[in-house]
Amino acid sequence: MIQSGYPVVFGSRSTQTSSLIPKDTEVLSHAEAAQKATIIIIAIQREHYNFLTSLAEILHGKVLVDISNNLKLNQYPESNAEYLAQLVPGAKVVKAFNTVSAWALQSGTLDASRQVFVCGDDMEAKQMVMDIVRAVGLTPLDQGSLLAAQEIENYPLQLFPMWKFPILLSLGLVAFFFFYCLIRDIIYPYVYENKDFSFFIAISIPNRICPILALILLALVYLPGVLAAIIQLYRGTKYRRFPDWLDKWMLCRKQLGLVALAFASLHVLFTLVIPIRSFVRWRISSQIVSQVLNNKTEPLNNTNAWLSDSYLALGILGFFLFVLLGITSLPSVSNNVNWREFRFVQSKLGYLTLILCTAHTMVYGGKWFLSPSSYRWYLPSAYMLSLIVPCAVLVVKFVLIFPCLDKPLTRIRQGWERNPQHSEQSNYIINKSAV
Amino acid sequence: MIQSGYPVVFGSRSTQTSSLIPKDTEVLSHAEAAQKATIIIIAIQREHYNFLTSLAEILHGKVLVDISNNLKLNQYPESNAEYLAQLVPGAKVVKAFNTVSAWALQSGTLDASRQVFVCGDDMEAKQMVMDIVRAVGLTPLDQGSLLAAQEIENYPLQLFPMWKFPILLSLGLVAFFFFYCLIRDIIYPYVYENKDFSFFIAISIPNRICPILALILLALVYLPGVLAAIIQLYRGTKYRRFPDWLDKWMLCRKQLGLVALAFASLHVLFTLVIPIRSFVRWRISSQIVSQVLNNKTEPLNNTNAWLSDSYLALGILGFFLFVLLGITSLPSVSNNVNWREFRFVQSKLGYLTLILCTAHTMVYGGKWFLSPSSYRWYLPSAYMLSLIVPCAVLVVKFVLIFPCLDKPLTRIRQGWERNPQHSEQSNYIINKSAV
Amino acid sequence: MIQSGYPVVFGSRSTQTSSLIPKDTEVLSHAEAAQKATIIIIAIQREHYNFLTSLAEILHGKVLVDISNNLKLNQYPESNAEYLAQLVPGAKVVKAFNTVSAWALQSGTLDASRQVFVCGDDMEAKQMVMDIVRAVGLTPLDQGSLLAAQEIENYPLQLFPMWKFPILLSLGLVAFFFFYCLIRDIIYPYVYENKDFSFFIAISIPNRICPILALILLALVYLPGVLAAIIQLYRGTKYRRFPDWLDKWMLCRKQLGLVALAFASLHVLFTLVIPIRSFVRWRISSQIVSQVLNNKTEPLNNTNAWLSDSYLALGILGFFLFVLLGITSLPSVSNNVNWREFRFVQSKLGYLTLILCTAHTMVYGGKWFLSPSSYRWYLPSAYMLSLIVPCAVLVVKFVLIFPCLDKPLTRIRQGWERNPQHSEQSNYIINKSAV
Repeated sequence: MIQSGYPVVFGSRSTQTSSLIPKDTEVLSHAEAAQKATIIIIAIQREHYNFLTSLAEILHGKVLVDISNNLKLNQYPESNAEYLAQLVPGAKVVKAFNTVSAWALQSGTLDASRQVFVCGDDMEAKQMVMDIVRAVGLTPLDQGSLLAAQEIENYPLQLFPMWKFPILLSLGLVAFFFFYCLIRDIIYPYVYENKDFSFFIAISIPNRICPILALILLALVYLPGVLAAIIQLYRGTKYRRFPDWLDKWMLCRKQLGLVALAFASLHVLFTLVIPIRSFVRWRISSQIVSQVLNNKTEPLNNTNAWLSDSYLALGILGFFLFVLLGITSLPSVSNNVNWREFRFVQSKLGYLTLILCTAHTMVYGGKWFLSPSSYRWYLPSAYMLSLIVPCAVLVVKFVLIFPCLDKPLTRIRQGWERNPQHSEQSNYIINKSAV
Repeated sequence: MIQSGYPVVFGSRSTQTSSLIPKDTEVLSHAEAAQKATIIIIAIQREHYNFLTSLAEILHGKVLVDISNNLKLNQYPESNAEYLAQLVPGAKVVKAFNTVSAWALQSGTLDASRQVFVCGDDMEAKQMVMDIVRAVGLTPLDQGSLLAAQEIENYPLQLFPMWKFPILLSLGLVAFFFFYCLIRDIIYPYVYENKDFSFFIAISIPNRICPILALILLALVYLPGVLAAIIQLYRGTKYRRFPDWLDKWMLCRKQLGLVALAFASLHVLFTLVIPIRSFVRWRISSQIVSQVLNNKTEPLNNTNAWLSDSYLALGILGFFLFVLLGITSLPSVSNNVNWREFRFVQSKLGYLTLILCTAHTMVYGGKWFLSPSSYRWYLPSAYMLSLIVPCAVLVVKFVLIFPCLDKPLTRIRQGWERNPQHSEQSNYIINKSAV
Repeated sequence: MIQSGYPVVFGSRSTQTSSLIPKDTEVLSHAEAAQKATIIIIAIQREHYNFLTSLAEILHGKVLVDISNNLKLNQYPESNAEYLAQLVPGAKVVKAFNTVSAWALQSGTLDASRQVFVCGDDMEAKQMVMDIVRAVGLTPLDQGSLLAAQEIENYPLQLFPMWKFPILLSLGLVAFFFFYCLIRDIIYPYVYENKDFSFFIAISIPNRICPILALILLALVYLPGVLAAIIQLYRGTKYRRFPDWLDKWMLCRKQLGLVALAFASLHVLFTLVIPIRSFVRWRISSQIVSQVLNNKTEPLNNTNAWLSDSYLALGILGFFLFVLLGITSLPSVSNNVNWREFRFVQSKLGYLTLILCTAHTMVYGGKWFLSPSSYRWYLPSAYMLSLIVPCAVLVVKFVLIFPCLDKPLTRIRQGWERNPQHSEQSNYIINKSAV
């Protein structure tokens, strides 16, 4: 702030100068400093706030900037800033700066968000603090009245709260499918054919797991919507809350979809390096050598060419749409898109992606799909398991499209109720007496 | 709102309680409710607004929140909010909430934009409504005075208006080139060599169409700029409007470019899976087998190696720059870039991309480029057709760079006119009497 | 503006009508125009501002919009807008519109940022100008008081100031490694084996340079952090500024990382096209042919399969995390992420990426790693050189994690000092007397 040209004074218990404090600033006692300053930045912890009550008179009319943070989410019933406002009723409390890292401010290496959330009840005080924020080179974001302080104080304590469930779920599924593939693809041939395919762990097995997870997680994005529709149809009304687990599931659909996209991208990379793999080159060359030694030339198998090409084409189109969905979920893109466009992309394109990816997996199975010869130790291929959820979602969704179900559902979503217990409500005013 | 701690009353024609309405709220008659409330959310349709005139006195000084939407763009001469302000002159009308989906609000599953556009003439009323928006967990965006209501009401009705032309154009081109390639690559060999290459439909033909469309659409992004320069040179002034079609074309250049990028990405994916295709593996192995059986080893063809490698390298660099252009057009990136930087990227890097991609296509042709043997039924290869537009754009642009044309163009763009009909205008003030 | 329904008058030295000026507007003398208007847009250069002093009385209370730009960064001690405010003290000066391209406004082709930075001391005047901005179809961004004018005037003059160093550095490294590889891979075989591998310039050598640069630049992103830690440990305090070069280095880490990501992406593309290259196809087929002619079949080399697969898998995972880091650095994503999350991603995931990429390069060397036979003209393989910086960073970082160093470092970063020269400072108030 001194660099930005603001005169600064420090208030301290002891007025001795310290090497910590820049030379151009005065160090005064608390009361003197408070008297002299117009804007006071409170750099103490909430527990020590009550000592400010003794300064209440001096602080009257001053702008108090609360920059405190707590150690836990919702640690106190009210936010620190609101608590401060209660203690010093005459002062204009503004919450700011708590979301910026002190270390980053000091070293001047602010690669992260330059946004400073500011809130406060007094417009002028807020404006002054926002000007300081701008002067320091940051971007103030007006979050409204002091009511927003609670949220602003919780903000820096979060660590990807919405991502916890999708990531844990996918880790569990990865572990399951890893051991499943380990048994089928490495242990089985080792036991029966005495072949050492342990190097499959590096690429072949990840390239099994990734598409399976991508498909299952993508289906799990659309499953809650289908379940919600069934519940609404069954209840005959939309005016009852969904079960809690369904609400939570619906709230993390975006994260589920992005984790699915991550797995799909890995699958693409793992697939594209196939021809560079030493093992694959060896297998192809040994096939050709054996062909030559047996002196026979294979004709082009048209069915195989069709299956291989259409399987790849479906995968490419599915992945392409999936990436499109991912781009639309970028905050800056989704903010530029209205609700109708967003629903079009996420619902129509989303289902198209799911259909393409499911078809991709089915054609991959090709002639061996559901054939008993592909079972090993009674275990079907892993990709077969991955088809269960998406097929279920697609079948139910297909059924829900039929007019006999779609019409009542649309009416329910527009407010119609099967068992209306109340009088006609066509036009009403919602009034609100302000606080 | 009740969850956020606001006291809420409902105004209704009938004051019977309904199951629809939460228990903690009062249901009153319209007049009583209006009397009691400070902020009144008008949840009725525009057609019924005139009944509010009877309440005009009670509504005096109250904040009326207009949340209505229309069914068509620009359905009425003035916006609903302005109409409401006319009907109840004493009230402070604020437009808000109309861009948020009711269904999304209800189910609490707001993945899409959390932005709520708010506009209104009264600053304080607007501030109160913005505080409610924040309390409900959404982000208010101040759009200024009530003049903005028209735009806010049109917003939720749009479905990618800027994308219509680029998508229709590319669909048309896709259809044309699909049949063109079908004839050359599938029907021709079927007729003359009786070979069934129908599986080319899955990958080979899409991989012809995608690069062609990417190149043509990319050239179409730069064509209007070149045309505009020619028109300005011909007219000798910049102070006359371009023809309407050119203006519209210029406005959808970004969308054209992004569609071109989509096709380029598909082309990359289709190209990278080539070595995994069953048909390609068969062709390579049968080539090797026939080589062995004929007992001859081919030496390395250095020209071929050069052509193949430089063709790939040009394509990679072109695609890389293309993706860079795409990233710069993301709203959050382009907002962080000033006009000079944006022009540098979109103009300099854009032309470099066009040059690289055109060169990539030319080198792809290689030795067979323009050779008569590549004609089938007098039809040249499809990629030859794709070169027409980009080459034209590059040639004209190259001509325009010559000083004899560039100098007058720069002067015209700085305001110089070949036939000036007016007196010297070096310094003037533009004044504006506010409304 | 006329299109948006504002009445506009022009003030000019000569009151003759001109073809430049739309028909619906009046042209008046400066004084008359200023008298009539409420908002006055000053479209003259700073040098001519002093003529406005003669109109000072008429301009009293009017809103003056300063839209001027300078030719150089910080050309004058104070911003043009502040200079104007000094000249005409009674007027309400608002800075706006200078960041928007006149050409873009005219041709209506605004693909770039639609943001208009607005600043001014008078809230109401600012509000009026922001309403005009919105009416013209642009987005006003309130940048605070007139203090911000300097920055707003500098803004349109910048051309990627933060990117200069990373791009120059990488160009230098590209040149060095290009000649290094040229000598080892093209000149050496030409001299000793008389083989012409000149076509390596197109793909093979770029595919050497790209991963090397990606790895070195990625390591250079993390090197300053490690150096800063060493300096802090050595000094025993965090309350002294780092040397200037280190500060600057730290500020362009994001750009360094993004350039590294660009090289990594190119490396991925160059690698994935390997099997399509004509040279590679020829090499593989000639290997198979020679195998057949010598009538021997090679068994699967398990070590090779392991090395090749794990090298590819490490590269894929490294690149995947690298892309994640890149996505998190998009402004719209990093703005939605709090400081704790940002540090987690950039520090934890960043180091994981560095470890994976370094391991990828080491396994690539495989059996030949550090083997003397790979030296040509005493020059080691280029990838060996690229390992120096990342290995150094990782080793030092690993040492810094040991508790005997980590504990004092953490304490230093929390404010502890080895040689404290000042009294206890546990709780103090920073006060600030507003300007």
